[in-house]
Amino acid sequence: MTAPGREPDRRHLARLLEEAGSALDPDGVAALIAGILAAPPEIGATWHVLVADPTPPALAAALEAMRAGLAQDFRDGLADEDFALLPRAARLAMLREELKVHRLGGFIVPRADEHQGEYVPRCGQRLAWLTGFTGSAGMAIVLAERAALFVDGRYTLQAAAQADAQLFEIRHLIDEPPARWLAGVLKKGMVVGYDPWLHTPQEVERLKGGAERAGASLKPVANPIDRIWPGRPPAPLAPVVPHPDRFAGESAPAKRSRLGRALAEDGAAAAVLTAPESIAWLLNIRGGDVPHTPLPLSFAILRGDGSVTLFIDRRKLAPGLDRHLGNRVAIETPDRLGPALDQLAAAGAPVQVDPATAASWVFDRLEQAGARILRAADPCLLPKACKNPVELDGTRAAHRRDGAAVTRFLAWLAHEAPKGELREIAVSDRLEALRRTGENFRDLSFPTISGAGSNGAIVHYRATPQSEKRLEPGTLFLLDSGAQYLDGTTDITRTVAIGTPSDEMRDRFTRVLKGHIALATARFPKGTTGAQLDALARRALWQKGLDYDHGTGHGVGSYLSVHEGPQRISKAPNAQPLLPGMIVSNEPGYYKTGAYGIRIENLVVVQPSQNGGERDMLCFETVTLAPLDRALVAPDLLEDEEIAWFDSYQARVREVIAPLVDRETARWLEAATAPIG
Amino acid sequence: MTAPGREPDRRHLARLLEEAGSALDPDGVAALIAGILAAPPEIGATWHVLVADPTPPALAAALEAMRAGLAQDFRDGLADEDFALLPRAARLAMLREELKVHRLGGFIVPRADEHQGEYVPRCGQRLAWLTGFTGSAGMAIVLAERAALFVDGRYTLQAAAQADAQLFEIRHLIDEPPARWLAGVLKKGMVVGYDPWLHTPQEVERLKGGAERAGASLKPVANPIDRIWPGRPPAPLAPVVPHPDRFAGESAPAKRSRLGRALAEDGAAAAVLTAPESIAWLLNIRGGDVPHTPLPLSFAILRGDGSVTLFIDRRKLAPGLDRHLGNRVAIETPDRLGPALDQLAAAGAPVQVDPATAASWVFDRLEQAGARILRAADPCLLPKACKNPVELDGTRAAHRRDGAAVTRFLAWLAHEAPKGELREIAVSDRLEALRRTGENFRDLSFPTISGAGSNGAIVHYRATPQSEKRLEPGTLFLLDSGAQYLDGTTDITRTVAIGTPSDEMRDRFTRVLKGHIALATARFPKGTTGAQLDALARRALWQKGLDYDHGTGHGVGSYLSVHEGPQRISKAPNAQPLLPGMIVSNEPGYYKTGAYGIRIENLVVVQPSQNGGERDMLCFETVTLAPLDRALVAPDLLEDEEIAWFDSYQARVREVIAPLVDRETARWLEAATAPIG
Repeated sequence: MTAPGREPDRRHLARLLEEAGSALDPDGVAALIAGILAAPPEIGATWHVLVADPTPPALAAALEAMRAGLAQDFRDGLADEDFALLPRAARLAMLREELKVHRLGGFIVPRADEHQGEYVPRCGQRLAWLTGFTGSAGMAIVLAERAALFVDGRYTLQAAAQADAQLFEIRHLIDEPPARWLAGVLKKGMVVGYDPWLHTPQEVERLKGGAERAGASLKPVANPIDRIWPGRPPAPLAPVVPHPDRFAGESAPAKRSRLGRALAEDGAAAAVLTAPESIAWLLNIRGGDVPHTPLPLSFAILRGDGSVTLFIDRRKLAPGLDRHLGNRVAIETPDRLGPALDQLAAAGAPVQVDPATAASWVFDRLEQAGARILRAADPCLLPKACKNPVELDGTRAAHRRDGAAVTRFLAWLAHEAPKGELREIAVSDRLEALRRTGENFRDLSFPTISGAGSNGAIVHYRATPQSEKRLEPGTLFLLDSGAQYLDGTTDITRTVAIGTPSDEMRDRFTRVLKGHIALATARFPKGTTGAQLDALARRALWQKGLDYDHGTGHGVGSYLSVHEGPQRISKAPNAQPLLPGMIVSNEPGYYKTGAYGIRIENLVVVQPSQNGGERDMLCFETVTLAPLDRALVAPDLLEDEEIAWFDSYQARVREVIAPLVDRETARWLEAATAPIG
Repeated sequence: MTAPGREPDRRHLARLLEEAGSALDPDGVAALIAGILAAPPEIGATWHVLVADPTPPALAAALEAMRAGLAQDFRDGLADEDFALLPRAARLAMLREELKVHRLGGFIVPRADEHQGEYVPRCGQRLAWLTGFTGSAGMAIVLAERAALFVDGRYTLQAAAQADAQLFEIRHLIDEPPARWLAGVLKKGMVVGYDPWLHTPQEVERLKGGAERAGASLKPVANPIDRIWPGRPPAPLAPVVPHPDRFAGESAPAKRSRLGRALAEDGAAAAVLTAPESIAWLLNIRGGDVPHTPLPLSFAILRGDGSVTLFIDRRKLAPGLDRHLGNRVAIETPDRLGPALDQLAAAGAPVQVDPATAASWVFDRLEQAGARILRAADPCLLPKACKNPVELDGTRAAHRRDGAAVTRFLAWLAHEAPKGELREIAVSDRLEALRRTGENFRDLSFPTISGAGSNGAIVHYRATPQSEKRLEPGTLFLLDSGAQYLDGTTDITRTVAIGTPSDEMRDRFTRVLKGHIALATARFPKGTTGAQLDALARRALWQKGLDYDHGTGHGVGSYLSVHEGPQRISKAPNAQPLLPGMIVSNEPGYYKTGAYGIRIENLVVVQPSQNGGERDMLCFETVTLAPLDRALVAPDLLEDEEIAWFDSYQARVREVIAPLVDRETARWLEAATAPIG
């Protein structure tokens, strides 16, 4: 790639680079900027240090000018918003042409990238590029004569709006899974391709099972979309920086030797890590390659002796990161992962890989090289999920800050909403602005869900200028939002009555509240999983024939993913016990399509319960601090203990948050948290 | 095998056989009797028809005489009770010798037999023969220098009492699973044998994983115990009889074609069935090869066209069974299963086998023959679990009869217990005698648990003359029992206060009752699993730091296994939704070691819930009818709705049962079911 721009500009830049002692020439800077543009915009100017540290003002200005110029060209690569303009039919035709050339009867396009994570960088948005569908879960299967797009219940409407039903039949990902569809539509002898980098072996097994029922087969192939996608963005190059021990609570060398020892005890010589959040946790580093989660996309191998090889583009390492990583962490380019796996195989030592999270490619490569593979969970998953005391203190501090911002927002909303002029986007912008003033704020932790009236009933709603509604009297407003602070990740949902709520709204809100309280006050023995507790949060709704179609709680990281495993509180079977230090959300809801949505979400920390009894019991410590809307509570539906919990939670919010906010907000908070009992 | 006895007796028997038109000669009868003796004694004289139908009285007398004689010799084969006399050290030494000869570093001895069922016939009791341990779950691993016996929490005490700790280290089956133990103790290069008939492929995978971590390997071998077990009993030969349509509710041909069609639609040409309860259900046949469950041990292949090959010893088919099975069911001897699998493979059609329930041997054989194997659940599991209206009516009728017997028993107990002379075995014998008078009674459905005082705290207690206690004032008495009726299988637990219970007992009983009611009154959306509901039954105990170490509910068959899958209500993850027609138990409990045990168990049927709301909801219909001990209820711990449920359940018991019992019992029932509210 060569840098665009006029020759004098290039010479000027070359001189500035030389003066600043940069290792890059203008072409190198252009390539770097392509990677910067492929990352989310939140990185701002932090990437300048990747060019020269310190960055002289003149150089910084030149870099920003160059970025602005390149950004213009880059727009064409993947237009995020205007899917109506995508040449979808042409893309599908190109893919079919490509399949014909390679004698494939079809090709499977999952939403996942090579890391199987929730957020996918622009270069990995193959499903969106092909179909227009941008939801966080889905899969397309393209055959010569037909094609299907599989999405789950959250995304049925969105898929119908974004994808072209003439090109793709829309199918339900859960009720009619792709494997079953394959079993029904493939013909005997057909060969369907898949990219082994984009599927876990467990998924490949399922899909294979479907194909085999039809007498067809699957074949791992190089991704044809990567060949036909013109101007596909490069891999993102957001700066990778140290995550200081004062936030992490345990040094990276300590983590490495602890986990290495455990690996060795389990008979593994090494573990292959393909989840960037595991690598970020293990090495105490953070990046910005994907939206809202400070991940440095990378791979790693952890050895029994605690040493690590990190496969990452060196250009994105911030100055000083080498020193932070230390000499037990070797850096290699990502394309060296394959040869490194071959080497592990050649050494004859057992290699541990996670069949639930690692790409099928890793297994194929190890098998071809004759490695002894041990299938076991990513060794970072559990230690990362169980926060240490420093991380928990950080989380509490972040939640106080976040609670203050949300409370200031709610006070403002209470004042402004009755005027009837507020709209969804302006409202969420207001909250974001209040959060940004908080210490250690880095980013939102996910795109805010700001849903007025019937938009609140769309579980994964995202307001656009076309879709947004006004907050009108007699409706409910649902706001689900969160932030990334250096010391913790937050996620909170509040449902607020605009004007006077109906009796039905209060009934439904109170049932959701009963579920929230049942979970918040639950005691449960060691070994209990979130799947076991889920029904407690739904019972009050179930008794009325009501329910909600999402999980009750997800794990939350520490300045990492806002959705983090392996723990979960949901209907889905899950064998992972809740362990002390785990952070999970407590977020039951109720949605009346076309009318309103209700969700009450606090984050809770799993803690030992000291209240006597015969067993080792656990309980939840609620860490989210912002008032619940008392106007929505129907006290006659609550038991005495439920009223006691509500009043004491509100009192705690008042005590902690009042000193942190302006006097006007504090005054509002005083009234908003008056007891209902 | 030749028949023992004096020559004149043989000649006499030969003449009687000839006169009765029997196909058997005296040697054949002796072999048959060996198989009869290898089955549980409940079959009584029903086997006579296998010799001649009708059986002339003189022949019947001769047959019984011969059985009595052979039974004496047979006793030595496997002594069920006196484990202290077993030559355990010698057996272990013989096994080790055998392993040495075959160059094996060890051998794995599971509790399972070839059918992976709960009850194992005498010939399959290899674990008991080797270790002395007779629990219903467990595994031994024998290495050259050490050996371990793995049992779960229910059996820790029993294993310690039955097995010799000098020979076997006792390990916890769940906390320290065999696979992990193998990983820790095996040496590199070691080869450990296992009998592929006695493990599912899923289990073999787990064990292999453990061995491989140690650099060792597993090898399928012919079972060495079968070579060194002198006088090992033959396979049981209890008569196999038709299960009439008036109880089954659907004819066997209808079931066969329904399931065959579904198989074909799923792309399978045939399914291999190795679970005898599946075969019994599919073909509407019943047997008596194992205790308390009317199973005919056998294998079968179901084809897409609805035809079946049944692999079974022809000698045990009662007269007329051929006609009942019809000409679409071929009979083959069990040793023809292998060649039949080879044939399926040769035909090139996909064969469905259940990796969770079928023996690893089946998969190995199919793979060696080059078959296309489809791994999927046994196709009979779900249809068998979802009872049809005829089966449900039968279950309700059986429960009325059973409830009358239990109520008569409870009235008797209330009268007799205060005298302070009752003992556990006499008490359970009394209940059994009352049940035996009921129409359609065939057998108990499991060994009665009759636990007085501290014996009630032993979850799987079985009273022996050595262990039994008197029912003393101030204690609790726990009785868990059930019966097999032609029209249904029952399972009920009642806990009764002898004299005046303590406040703690009432507190604990009431918490267990709250859990029982929470489940009995639960409404839940379609798709909900038992694992999701389990916490509802435990919550009241959890809040006090208490719990119980068993599942809350198991599936129950229709004149079949009292423990039946795939549904379950328990802490263990389980992806099977509860479906209308499924029968499950509702049996929370509480156990105070050394003091008392509490369990409240009714059977419930999953039913659609018609009470409005937005979702398709399900609920439970309680079918068990016997009064709960009101003396143990602390009404101040109950919510109003809980009291209402209790009183209305008791009233229903009174209304239904009073007309079915003697006047004295009815009078007692009147008082026993007086409202508490």
